[in-house]
Amino acid sequence: MEFSSKLLEKAVNEMAQLPGIGKRTALRLVLHLLKQPVEQTQFLSQALTSMREEIKFCKNCHNISDVEVCEICNNPSRNHKIICVVEDVRDVMAIENTNQFKGIYHVLGGKISPIDGVGPSQLNIKSLVDKVALGQTEELIFALSSTMEGDTTNFYIFKQIKDFDIKTSTIARGIAIGDELEYADEVTLGRSILNRVPFENSLKNL
Amino acid sequence: MEFSSKLLEKAVNEMAQLPGIGKRTALRLVLHLLKQPVEQTQFLSQALTSMREEIKFCKNCHNISDVEVCEICNNPSRNHKIICVVEDVRDVMAIENTNQFKGIYHVLGGKISPIDGVGPSQLNIKSLVDKVALGQTEELIFALSSTMEGDTTNFYIFKQIKDFDIKTSTIARGIAIGDELEYADEVTLGRSILNRVPFENSLKNL
Repeated sequence: MEFSSKLLEKAVNEMAQLPGIGKRTALRLVLHLLKQPVEQTQFLSQALTSMREEIKFCKNCHNISDVEVCEICNNPSRNHKIICVVEDVRDVMAIENTNQFKGIYHVLGGKISPIDGVGPSQLNIKSLVDKVALGQTEELIFALSSTMEGDTTNFYIFKQIKDFDIKTSTIARGIAIGDELEYADEVTLGRSILNRVPFENSLKNL
Repeated sequence: MEFSSKLLEKAVNEMAQLPGIGKRTALRLVLHLLKQPVEQTQFLSQALTSMREEIKFCKNCHNISDVEVCEICNNPSRNHKIICVVEDVRDVMAIENTNQFKGIYHVLGGKISPIDGVGPSQLNIKSLVDKVALGQTEELIFALSSTMEGDTTNFYIFKQIKDFDIKTSTIARGIAIGDELEYADEVTLGRSILNRVPFENSLKNL
């Protein structure tokens, strides 16, 4: 792609570094900004820079926060004895949106994935084990992706904490609400039969 | 969507103003930046701001440029008597990539589209008519989209300049190279028969 302007080229190249944004999309976005008032670009740049420079991670659960300890960890009405282990900040937001969990979180910052060069030391695993070692925690809920990497990470953490007196659980895997059995894959369907729950339990969430 | 940080929320909201980028994608992009070195965000912001604030439009053809008159208009080896009329900067880049056109351009900045509130006065039409009125131009090539808005714009400009002694043409519409006839729509196929070209001509581009 040949550009008639170095400024344009540089902006497109920087934009195209974002994941899922190719050169063509980047050009479309940049030309859109050119048609908008100059303030829109200034606001965008300002918001991105101050977000990147000033944002903090909660020193307790590693969730994104504007202060040292995040709102969730700071909330005395939440149950600090139940910790939900998640991959990243988006998962915290997703679970919070369900309004079904009143414990606290621990954000790992990813999952163990040797193919991407991510080992246990790059994740917030040690701080989780240290937290459990304090003996204040009753239950760990693993809420990681149902993939090989997620399962590996669950198992790695499980091995580190299995000597402590603590309950561990994973979120239920099964047929998604609204799904037709016909289209479910065999592994999911098989597990959902093995892990069947008393019918009365399924009525509770209605 | 509930955010645990105002800084994050602001960055996501600004990002989501870009066309085709929803809140979820914006969040994904912003969280990606958070994982990258702080310099990447600074470079991106800097590139966008300086692009928006410093970029110029060629005063001759309205193409994007770092200087007053763009490289194409400044090139004495190009034929300044043939003007290719295009919608926007991307079209200039697309035609330049073909290496088939050695004239100059005129960027309208859009097309007449009442439904989007774009009338002739918002486009660079007057400067085109003024340029033609100088009598130095031999041919106008309309290279606009083959849509109702594109055709309307072509026709509007044609009416403005039809009293001048000037040749006008549009780029050829027809079956795209590599397309199967079976899948071509009727209008395109019908026009491609009406506007058939001598077989010898089709050999020239091989």
